[in-house]
Order: sequence, then C-alpha cells, then structure tokens
Amino acid sequence: MKVVILGGVAAGAKAAAKTKRLLPDSDIDLYTDDTHVSYSACGLPYYIQGNFADYKTLLVRSPEEFRAQGINIHLQSKAIKILPETKQVLIKSLSENRAFLVEYDQLIIATGARPVMPPIDNINLKNVFTLRKIEDGIAIRDKALVSKHVTVIGSGYIGIELLEAFIELGLKVTIVEFAPYVLPIFDNDMSKLIQEQLNSINNGRFEILTSELVTAFLSNDQGEVVGFKTGTGKEYNTDMVVICTGVKPNVEFARDAGIALGETGAIKVNKHMLTNIPNIYACGDCAEKTLIIDGSKVWIPLGSTANKEGRVAAINLAGGDEDFEGVLGSAVVRCLSFTMSMTGYTEKKAAQAGFQPVSAIVTKNDRVGYMPDVNNITLKLIADKTTGLLLGGQAIGAGDADKRINALTAALLGRLTVEEFTKNDLTYAPPFSPTIDPLLNAAQILINKIKKD
Amino acid sequence: MKVVILGGVAAGAKAAAKTKRLLPDSDIDLYTDDTHVSYSACGLPYYIQGNFADYKTLLVRSPEEFRAQGINIHLQSKAIKILPETKQVLIKSLSENRAFLVEYDQLIIATGARPVMPPIDNINLKNVFTLRKIEDGIAIRDKALVSKHVTVIGSGYIGIELLEAFIELGLKVTIVEFAPYVLPIFDNDMSKLIQEQLNSINNGRFEILTSELVTAFLSNDQGEVVGFKTGTGKEYNTDMVVICTGVKPNVEFARDAGIALGETGAIKVNKHMLTNIPNIYACGDCAEKTLIIDGSKVWIPLGSTANKEGRVAAINLAGGDEDFEGVLGSAVVRCLSFTMSMTGYTEKKAAQAGFQPVSAIVTKNDRVGYMPDVNNITLKLIADKTTGLLLGGQAIGAGDADKRINALTAALLGRLTVEEFTKNDLTYAPPFSPTIDPLLNAAQILINKIKKD
Repeated sequence: MKVVILGGVAAGAKAAAKTKRLLPDSDIDLYTDDTHVSYSACGLPYYIQGNFADYKTLLVRSPEEFRAQGINIHLQSKAIKILPETKQVLIKSLSENRAFLVEYDQLIIATGARPVMPPIDNINLKNVFTLRKIEDGIAIRDKALVSKHVTVIGSGYIGIELLEAFIELGLKVTIVEFAPYVLPIFDNDMSKLIQEQLNSINNGRFEILTSELVTAFLSNDQGEVVGFKTGTGKEYNTDMVVICTGVKPNVEFARDAGIALGETGAIKVNKHMLTNIPNIYACGDCAEKTLIIDGSKVWIPLGSTANKEGRVAAINLAGGDEDFEGVLGSAVVRCLSFTMSMTGYTEKKAAQAGFQPVSAIVTKNDRVGYMPDVNNITLKLIADKTTGLLLGGQAIGAGDADKRINALTAALLGRLTVEEFTKNDLTYAPPFSPTIDPLLNAAQILINKIKKD
Repeated sequence: MKVVILGGVAAGAKAAAKTKRLLPDSDIDLYTDDTHVSYSACGLPYYIQGNFADYKTLLVRSPEEFRAQGINIHLQSKAIKILPETKQVLIKSLSENRAFLVEYDQLIIATGARPVMPPIDNINLKNVFTLRKIEDGIAIRDKALVSKHVTVIGSGYIGIELLEAFIELGLKVTIVEFAPYVLPIFDNDMSKLIQEQLNSINNGRFEILTSELVTAFLSNDQGEVVGFKTGTGKEYNTDMVVICTGVKPNVEFARDAGIALGETGAIKVNKHMLTNIPNIYACGDCAEKTLIIDGSKVWIPLGSTANKEGRVAAINLAGGDEDFEGVLGSAVVRCLSFTMSMTGYTEKKAAQAGFQPVSAIVTKNDRVGYMPDVNNITLKLIADKTTGLLLGGQAIGAGDADKRINALTAALLGRLTVEEFTKNDLTYAPPFSPTIDPLLNAAQILINKIKKD
C-alpha cells in the first residue's frame, strides 16, 4: 500500500510513524514544504528565550531516523494539487523548481496553518517576522540578540509567550493588541485582570497598547523596520517586529480538489479523521475540530490535538477503528510568573452557542495562607443556568492556576453539572491547596446563582 | 433552638459558624476538651518546620470571634455521656474538675480522632510525643530546637511531613516503619519507588528503617527517652520520638449512648450526616465516610472532608436538604522536593473490594524535556478489567504529580471508563506538560492491557 502524507510537523510526523508501525510493508512518503520535519513548534518561544542553545533540541525525529524506519521524507516539497480521481498529488519541489505527480492509495493531509497577515503598510520590511517554523525562530533569536526594542503585534498565546521570551532576553517590549485587553480569547473580565497583573510586574520592561491597530511600518534606507504607526496616528520606534495576529488553515489546495471544508473554514472530518473523499484523511491544524461539550464545530489549532489526530488518522487508515471525539478547548500559557489557563466555553462563546451561561469568579490563595510560597489565583467557573451543566473555566495568577483547569476537564468530558462537581474530592495538604479548594468555592457560588430566581 | 456541638477543630467549628448563619436566633454551645478551637491541625508540621513563627497563625477563628457571633465556646470541656432520651450531654470540665448536664434540641458530634498508641515498653517517657493538638506541635518544636536526633515512628502522611520538617530544622532523623516500605497507604510498587526517591536525596540527613518494629524505649535517670530497641534486638540512640502510627475515632461515649457505629468503627451517618438517633449528627474524623466510586464504607480522616461534612450537618440541622455524597480518598503529601499524591482505590484495596484491577505505570517528564525545570513523575493508573471503570491513581516524583491526580478525581466522580478518559483534553504548553500528558500515556497502556485476552 502506498501512503502519502502531506505535512510533517506534528500530525503528519505522528501519522507517518504510527502508520509504519501498523503497516510495516507499506510505502510511506511524507512531503512537506518545510526545511524540517517532526519538531516541537510550541517550543520556539523557549528557544528564542534561550532555555536551550541548539534549535535541534526541538526536533522530535530526524529525516534520517524516519528513513531508517522506511519512511521517505521529502523536504521543501509543496503539495500543489490533489487529483482524487486518479489518486495523485502534484508536488512542487521548492529547491529544484520542478513539479511531479505522486500516486497514493491513502492520503493524509496535515498541512497545518500559516500566519494571518494584517493589512499593514510596508509589511515586507526587513526584521518584520512571523513565528511558525524553525527558521523563523532562528531569525527572530538572532535579531533579538542584537536589538534593544521589539514590538509584538497580537497578544494571543504566542504573543504572550514571546513577551516573556523577549523580557528574559533583556529587550524592551511593546505589545500591541487591537482588542480592549490582552489575551482576548479569555472573557473580557479575565483578560482585564491578566492585563492588570502583567502591568503589576512591568518594572519598565514592557508596554501594553490595547485598542490599538498598527497601520504602517516605518523604515530606514536599508529597508529595515525602525518603527510603526498606529491608527491613532502615533509613531513608535522599534528595532524588530513579530506579527502574532493568528493563523489560518492551509486548505486552499484541498478545497480546490473537492475536499469539503467545514463551517469554520478548516477541512471537515469525521471521527475517523476522514474527509468527504474516500481514502483522504486530514489531521492537525488544517482540520476542523469538534467541541466535546455540545458537538459544535470549532477550529482550535494546538500541537497536543495534532498529535492525537495524527495517531487516530493512522489507525483508521491502517484498517483500525478509533474515534477522535474532539477537544475541550483546553489551553495554558505562561508569562514570567503568571499562568493563564482555560478549558471549555468562555462565557461569551457559551452565550453565542445558545447556552444561558452564569459564572462565578473567586480570587483565593492557591494553598494555605501560612505557607511561604502561597500565591493568588483568580478562577472563573461557567455553567448553564437551565441545566446546571458545567461549560468551562478560566484560571489565572501567580499561583497554581493550571492544576485547577486540569481538574475541570474530566468534569466537562463527563458532562457533570456544577451540583455534581461540588461533590468532587480534590487532594488537600497545606503546600498544595487551601482546605476548601478555590474550584469548590466557585462551584458553590455558582450553584447559589443558578438557584436564584 | 438549643444546638450543642461536641468538638471544635475543623468539622465542629465549621458546623457552629454555619448553623449560626442559618439560624441566627439559635443558642449554640460548643464544648471541646481541647485548649484551642477552630484551627488548622494539618498545619502543625509546617509550624514545627518554622514556616511561620507564631502558632496563632493556625487559628482560623478565636473563641472571642465565636462569642462575638453569639456562639459560646467552652474549652477543656469533655463530653462524657450522651442521654438521648432526655436530650442531655454530661460535660466534664477539665480545668475545674466538675461535671454538669447540658440540654440540646439538636446535637452535633465532631469529636475527631486520637493517636493510636502502639504496644511499646516505656511509652510514657519524657520527649515521646504524638502530634494532634496545638500543644503537641509547640512541645515538639521546642524540643526539636534543642535536639540533634529525632525518631519518627510510622510513615503515613504525618510521619512523612514530619520527616521534612525535622530535616529542614537540621536534625538527623530516623523513621521507623513496620511495613516493607514507607507510605504503605500507597500500593507496594509505588511505596518502594517513594522510598528509593527519598533515599536518593538522603545526603546523610535521615535513615529509613522498614519492616522494623519499635518494642521499647530506653531512658536516662531523668525519665527522658534516649533511645529505642527494635524487634530485631538492635538499639538506637535518639533525643526525642514522635509516634505517628495512625489515629482512631473518638466514638466510645457515642456508642455507649446507643449511637450506631459503622463497619469501619466510626460513627455511622447518612448523607445528611445524621446518626441513627434523631437530632444527633456526626461529622469530621469521628464519622464514617462513603467511597463515591462504589458506595462502600471507609474511614479516611482528613481536614478537607471534615470541613465539608460540618457544613452539610449544619445545613440539614437548620432544616435544609444537602447531601454529602462521600469521598474519593484523594490525598497528597510533600517531603522536600517530592510529591506523593493519590485518589480512589489502590490496586490492593480494589482487589479486596471485589474489582478485577489492572494497572499501568509510566515514568515520564512532567513537562517538555527541553524546559529547564523539567522533572520526572511516576504515575499509576488503575481500572477494572471487566467494566473498564477507572478506579484510582497514584502519582509521585519531583515533578508536578499533584496536578495529574486532581485531573483524575472528576473522572472518578463522573464514573468514566479509561476509554472515555483517553478522550480528555488536558492543557498543553511546554512549561506545563509534554505534548501527550503522562495521564494519557498511562490510560492508553491501560486500555491495551484491558483489551488483551
């Protein structure tokens, strides 16, 4: 059997390795437009920060290791067109400037996503970066090491991680966000608190501009960026810029071949990760996801999900029967001493989805107050007023916020009501939690709110 | 209405405060044989360690604060006899050496537990301690500050916390455990690893004796302990001893009044925390608990549970309708850089309860390997072979073990199978987790084991 895999960062690499284990006699060819395969893209901010010296640390498996397993890796080879009728893919070699057709019995599309470029004048100046691939990370780190000021446009997960990275490198940072507060994927009330908390540890190291739009970059004679202009007309100096205003799925060539996209614009797949066309699977950031809570369609591109989907696609391709049920929207990001973590629906998204969300916010110690390393966390818990069903949670702060969100995910998976969740027996000892965990405080308040009127 | 509460550490103090809020016009009298009321007994090891200077930090609410709320606190007042027919309790004043009858409309028994004293010759020597009350903590700290060597008998949660405390104080410690490994509440395979990990950071600071029994204490002319003798005949020198060989519920006076005990020997209660006698509630360490997983009866005395039960008893006493469903057996303990955390059934207890437990153990990084603060955790996951039902988990190590156990508790509460649990979407970012969390690795291995034969 001839298996062709398009894309090779997380989902594609995982699918290749798993397919070979399940079908040792199959021919597996992986084509990627990238110069690297099988790496932790999520680790790029930590490479830039200098947590490790060699970018090769990010490589999970080298092309040589794949080849030793009998998987052929074709770097700088971009999929241009899929021909489902003849089961062929047109591949363009980026290094040799030629194109060729390859045949497949089974095809896996794992072409990921690419940065969204906002409409900014002079966006092609030198030292204006996006962060997606290893070369991006290397270029950003090299430039950061000789810069004094960096501008980060967008304050999603990557923007926030880069804020930390550049601060740790000793650069002054300006982060520009179009929304009223940073991390707009959180509810506004939480994003506002995140911003206040970040500002509280500023110490002149960074500046957060919100409700601000970068309209143009300013350049010197060498075509290098030296500043930017905002919608309010103000001009700022900077030595380099990283644009982190989101990503979009690489799906155009798939759509052109008749592969259906979902309502989110990513490739529509069933629980087997199969597209609408037989023998063509899609997984990773190019594929649409299902929100387990209510079965609605979402597009939340994350490396952990990509790995799971690559595995499931390979199992089904090899004749197995494994479902990928979907995601809960769980995510976490760190900036210096602060953690911001969430799972499930935010209040705003829950309302858009037709729920009647009620929420409770508590700010509490993350462990008993007399412990020397006690810190605050602020926790928001969301449930549906009509059914009491838990819908999601957000936790932020210098304390152990991430533990609380991970304590919620199985409750969402099990479709527990907030009433049922109050029966939860979390671990307790003074170094780990107050006697009553903040999660249970929040759940109790939420119950009282639901019972009211 | 006249409400009498017997005992005032966690459950009793919580019940008193909650009752007063719900029934402002009630007369509430709390009798305790202790010299303090409403304190964090769980914090005593951290007071001994010196994490805070004043023991008063442990007090949640002072007798004066209770009195200001209209709750009468009677210290050093021990309940001797309950007379359910006449709704009276015979109280003995320990300070004044007199006894008197008090009347109640509703009675809450929250008399807690006391240390089990093992059969050791000369157990009443000076500088042989148990740790239960604030005075115990003060006496142990005072003696530790002038001692060079301490012996801890028993390696349950308190023994392990005291091991840390005494090491931090600079004492040499010998910990003596009758079982083959420390922390025998964990499965043997995990206890063995705990012991190996503790020994790996020993640095000559402590010695762990296992499968060893202390048979006698040795004394000097002043009646002070100076050593101990074990079952194998060996003699050891020491300056002080803390006996941590477990606790038993204070229930004898209740049993004598016709209040039914459960199969565990603690006071039998229903979900309202009501005993078999109308108007008499029991909560906290003196009361039996229900294991949520299968409804079996257990006795796991913990401060966090006591607080919840005190609250539920008060609500029902005040005419409300609130159930306490039970516990999952969740617990956590720290020793220096190591965390040991568990929830649900151990494999051995699951087998005793009639399940067919299968288990998977993985040792993994707690975050991505290239992060500077990465550490190992070893995780054991247990499920029933017949049904696939998740039964419990244990996690230990220098890494973030406690987060994984708290991620399991809602799965036990929601009675998820291990198959369902593999669909869990935990948070991921390099500082917090590997791409695939160790919990999901373990769940996958467990599924494969269940599917086999």
